[in-house]
Amino acid sequence: MSRYWSDLVHQLEPYVPGEQPKVERLVKLNTNENPYGPSPQALAAINAVAPDRLRLYPDPDATALRQSIARFYNVEAGQVFVGNGSDEVLAHIFYGFFKQQRPLLFPDITYSFYKVYCGLYGIDYQTVPLAEDFSISLADYPSANGGIIFPNPNAPTGMPVPLADIEACLQANNESLVVVHEAYIDFGGDSAVALVDRYPNLLVTQTLSKSRSLAGLRIGLAIGQRPLIEGLERVKNCFNSYPLDHYAIAAGAAAFDDIDYFRDTCARVIASREALREALQERGFEVLPSAANFVFARHAKLGGAELAAALRKHGVIIRHFARPERIADFVRITVGTGEQNQALLDAFDSECG
Amino acid sequence: MSRYWSDLVHQLEPYVPGEQPKVERLVKLNTNENPYGPSPQALAAINAVAPDRLRLYPDPDATALRQSIARFYNVEAGQVFVGNGSDEVLAHIFYGFFKQQRPLLFPDITYSFYKVYCGLYGIDYQTVPLAEDFSISLADYPSANGGIIFPNPNAPTGMPVPLADIEACLQANNESLVVVHEAYIDFGGDSAVALVDRYPNLLVTQTLSKSRSLAGLRIGLAIGQRPLIEGLERVKNCFNSYPLDHYAIAAGAAAFDDIDYFRDTCARVIASREALREALQERGFEVLPSAANFVFARHAKLGGAELAAALRKHGVIIRHFARPERIADFVRITVGTGEQNQALLDAFDSECG
Repeated sequence: MSRYWSDLVHQLEPYVPGEQPKVERLVKLNTNENPYGPSPQALAAINAVAPDRLRLYPDPDATALRQSIARFYNVEAGQVFVGNGSDEVLAHIFYGFFKQQRPLLFPDITYSFYKVYCGLYGIDYQTVPLAEDFSISLADYPSANGGIIFPNPNAPTGMPVPLADIEACLQANNESLVVVHEAYIDFGGDSAVALVDRYPNLLVTQTLSKSRSLAGLRIGLAIGQRPLIEGLERVKNCFNSYPLDHYAIAAGAAAFDDIDYFRDTCARVIASREALREALQERGFEVLPSAANFVFARHAKLGGAELAAALRKHGVIIRHFARPERIADFVRITVGTGEQNQALLDAFDSECG
Repeated sequence: MSRYWSDLVHQLEPYVPGEQPKVERLVKLNTNENPYGPSPQALAAINAVAPDRLRLYPDPDATALRQSIARFYNVEAGQVFVGNGSDEVLAHIFYGFFKQQRPLLFPDITYSFYKVYCGLYGIDYQTVPLAEDFSISLADYPSANGGIIFPNPNAPTGMPVPLADIEACLQANNESLVVVHEAYIDFGGDSAVALVDRYPNLLVTQTLSKSRSLAGLRIGLAIGQRPLIEGLERVKNCFNSYPLDHYAIAAGAAAFDDIDYFRDTCARVIASREALREALQERGFEVLPSAANFVFARHAKLGGAELAAALRKHGVIIRHFARPERIADFVRITVGTGEQNQALLDAFDSECG
């Protein structure tokens, strides 16, 4: 505490990211990173950055990256916004769009950073309970709102939201902005980018940290109609002119251009997830239907905290959320390589089997 | 414009960074980059980042970088905050410390981003005129304030503020935070980091974009007593968990460790600046005394806009600020290599001589 803090700093409750252990040789299945490395073309693009360019500022508009993303999604580069990880993109969205008279709506069980942004910027919000089966039921969202945001697939459940539900939500809420936060969309969901040209109230966010294996470079994006992107650019240009460095711009563009590698690694993660799901079910787990690169599961007899602690003893880290109570028995397990998943199952068998 | 923007977005007036031309072969003396590349040790650190690590999130605390900075300045790592360029660090400072009842104070002629942050976060401010000789006169700053910020050396004048003046200011304002923004300190000023342990109301910010030639990697820092750093961490952890990527952390740490290279390149820039100053004076320029890696100069007969346009014809880019009026006749010229400076002088001689 300090007398020099602004009042709001005293009330902040920061987001707590998953542990980044400093010890090597752990089987790290706690932060939904991709088990496969980035595209060889992304690595080649990094190596092609001339060392002397590091003394120069990067392109403040990250043009090359925005063009690659636009090409991939068949939109205009002016419909693409990029930032220093999707967390920065989301922060600008909250400040630029969600400071409204009416409350922002999001699921009660979801990405825990949403509440943190609301605290940071003094945004009023209401949560809407997940349905009985843990799915997001957009029909339950009241129409008088200052905006709606949800992940698709949802985190930490991994459950996808059908595109038809999203379209109905966009039509029912044409007075407010609907943000579809697609961190994990490439592992089995249908992207709402397909709807962007038809709905001026739709903004889609994605990250290169998951399906493009570049968590270590910090690249996030948003796609929407030009007036929404322009609003984000205004906020960004009042915050930091150059949020993406030379490597992020070059490697991000190359990763979007390398479609074959992207499709291949996503397919491998999906296959690995389905094998993991079956193996967990055989061991007495209930596994929610996942379209992400993780599964959310609970065991018939063992609590979530207990499970996470037991696996940790064997050097396997997974994530457990103590709150809300409704998910306290679940654990979130990142899909690893076949070998990593086996290490997890072996640890379970030896400790809890 | 969009109906979905928050009210404040309509009023924002973004910062306009210096041009990053896409054409090669220009003599680029407009954004105060270092003419020498980064430390070879920084480049080696980049090459030592294993490609497979890019799929993993970076250390959210950037521990290695903070330790190197702490070692260099003989402070604790807990007294060091780092961010995605000093612009991000400044943004967090404005939001975390300067939202106060009383107005923030800064010079009327200074880094133009200060006003932009105030606009972004609804911070009340008052500017204090520079003295007749363009120096910052801290004795003129009223004691009833919500904080004070100024660059040392000031931008765009390049003029340093004596450490004794800063210490007097800290003593006269122990109720409010004083931020010394030292982007250019290594080119001839005395860093206020030396005062940090004695003044709980002092925060010093720096960048690795200038004296450490890493503008392309986006690394800024703040040094202060632990409660101030804790306030910044709270804001940061409500905004973005991982603002620095693997390369920035590794190269930034190595750049701070390579003291010899740092001292050598700073000395070369200083020598080059003094030679440039003399050459400009011989050509009828008034050059303000600079402790930075740029000079701020006006010609007896030619206006600032006119000068910038004339040099541009010869492929030499410098920066001209049309406002405020008091500096409209000045141009800001980044100190280049001897060769770049000569290109500037040749362009002047052939166009205006």
